[in-house]
Amino acid sequence: ASDDKGQLLFHLLGLRAHLAATGRDTPAVTLKFLIEGEEESGSPNFEALLAERRDRLNCDVVVVTDTGMIAADTPSTVTGMRGLAVCTVAFHGPDLDLHSGVFGGAVPNPATAIARLAAALHDDSGRVQVPGFYDDVVELTAAERELFSRVPVDDAEFLGVAKSRALAGEQGFTTLERIGARPTAEVNGIGGGYQGAGGKTIVPSDAFVKLSFRLVANQNPHTVIKAVEAFVAEHTPAGVAARIDWEGEGVAPCLVPLDTPAYGALSDAISRAFDGLPVLPTREGGSGPEAAIQQALGAPMVFLGVGLPDDQIHAPNEKVALSMLYKGAEAAALLWAGFAGLGRSGLT
Amino acid sequence: ASDDKGQLLFHLLGLRAHLAATGRDTPAVTLKFLIEGEEESGSPNFEALLAERRDRLNCDVVVVTDTGMIAADTPSTVTGMRGLAVCTVAFHGPDLDLHSGVFGGAVPNPATAIARLAAALHDDSGRVQVPGFYDDVVELTAAERELFSRVPVDDAEFLGVAKSRALAGEQGFTTLERIGARPTAEVNGIGGGYQGAGGKTIVPSDAFVKLSFRLVANQNPHTVIKAVEAFVAEHTPAGVAARIDWEGEGVAPCLVPLDTPAYGALSDAISRAFDGLPVLPTREGGSGPEAAIQQALGAPMVFLGVGLPDDQIHAPNEKVALSMLYKGAEAAALLWAGFAGLGRSGLT
Repeated sequence: ASDDKGQLLFHLLGLRAHLAATGRDTPAVTLKFLIEGEEESGSPNFEALLAERRDRLNCDVVVVTDTGMIAADTPSTVTGMRGLAVCTVAFHGPDLDLHSGVFGGAVPNPATAIARLAAALHDDSGRVQVPGFYDDVVELTAAERELFSRVPVDDAEFLGVAKSRALAGEQGFTTLERIGARPTAEVNGIGGGYQGAGGKTIVPSDAFVKLSFRLVANQNPHTVIKAVEAFVAEHTPAGVAARIDWEGEGVAPCLVPLDTPAYGALSDAISRAFDGLPVLPTREGGSGPEAAIQQALGAPMVFLGVGLPDDQIHAPNEKVALSMLYKGAEAAALLWAGFAGLGRSGLT
Repeated sequence: ASDDKGQLLFHLLGLRAHLAATGRDTPAVTLKFLIEGEEESGSPNFEALLAERRDRLNCDVVVVTDTGMIAADTPSTVTGMRGLAVCTVAFHGPDLDLHSGVFGGAVPNPATAIARLAAALHDDSGRVQVPGFYDDVVELTAAERELFSRVPVDDAEFLGVAKSRALAGEQGFTTLERIGARPTAEVNGIGGGYQGAGGKTIVPSDAFVKLSFRLVANQNPHTVIKAVEAFVAEHTPAGVAARIDWEGEGVAPCLVPLDTPAYGALSDAISRAFDGLPVLPTREGGSGPEAAIQQALGAPMVFLGVGLPDDQIHAPNEKVALSMLYKGAEAAALLWAGFAGLGRSGLT
């Protein structure tokens, strides 16, 4: 399966190929395999493990395999994962639901207030309005935007998968830039007051909104959480009590610089495995524990994964294409040789 | 009980007093009693009955009894009831809930859109932003505002009943003006996306908001419904489909002019029954079928009701104070004499 047992295996094939091709008994660089089996559950024990086994995991480069490529004939590598901060904001107004004829228009309505909070999150051009939200964002360079623009992702196809009738989001960016390289604020759920059929003329007592913030390098989840809390306080009207519950401490974003020797070696290895095709950089819109590895080990990170968009990950009949596994194995075999060629001093 | 069996009875006592005091066998004016028993269920058959029995109900003045007074020592009369229009607005975005990491920030989010619609209903000063909403509103005169200001309704007491920690609403108006003489837009319920505990990083497929609009004279429910529909269309983003379901055709507001002979006779009768105290005009924030009576019968309307704020209407142990019933009976007895004194030509 592509997410991720199958992809882990190509490293064994790659190691065998590497040994066979080089005639060595041991690989040209020391390899440490770390298989993280809790990523789909939010990696609850991963950071503690990284801290506890820091010495055994010491390394010069980290190669992550839990990623995909654009298409079988379009080799690519992930160069960023977004971070995440998730919360529920609850507004409490009057202590009971009130008759809207007797009290409506005279007391604060928490459902109106929560709607105004959610509406204030974006301006009309889709930019997030939490003060300071973009302060730490590493902007895309012209060179990165040019590379992004070469990625053959079609908006019509994207809409077809999303079953959406329009694109939306931050103006001035392409779809791929919006979901990979730009931070977002999203309303995941909203509720309050009467939920049944027809009407009920009340001023509700309570309302809530569930928000998630996707973060990009170098945004810090802690900084964003504080900024959102200030924003909520600013949008809490008199007579309304706000409560914010965060899901944990958030996930940090991670970014792979394109100008490092490790990235150069990875790109070269993938390209050679894919018959010399150029390797395009992509970024994942989702979030994983990669930043935790970067922070714990302090080593450069690259991504070598060969999943394909139609592998049906998380779905029935999830698969992995054998042709991709073999190419992944070839790229891994070449990568160890490439890293060895650079040497420790050339890598770090 | 105060809402409304008890209050109906004082008319029988009043009629007996009227006959005894005047020495007549029949009242000084022809009385037709109309007891409407479906008001709490939205009066589903009332308009048809009014149309069907129009001839039998023909009259010069309508006296409505389903109302209250400010306090036992502060006689008052209702001079307006707000109208009502109630709807559910549903927004449909993508055809399925989407992963917010893969699609968030790139497709329209119907929960965000419904929040922006609800937030756009009011400006920061609490004024309803539906274009044309206030066009037909009969503004309070300086004299009416002066009378309103004499009504001893205490904001602290109002907040205590509402169990709210602040007042809110349209700036430039008192609490009593806001709930009696000003139209409102209220969010009665809002919903969409993930509703459970914790977080779920989705872009939801659907969201809704339940809205009610309280109307004052001379707003027309049909005109308001059309204006709200245009407002919703204007606030429906590309890629989102809107659907609006209205609860019926709305309820028209009604207003009693203070300068008519009928109002003068009523005010005089109540004042005399209450030991010469001045009678203050109030307006009900809620809505009833009174406008339907006005429209069907085309006669001036006045309100003689003696319910008190602490009668616990719609609650256990709903009651009516006997002292108030007797004063109501006395006012009724005096009112029939007052109407007769004016004569048909003086009334209409």
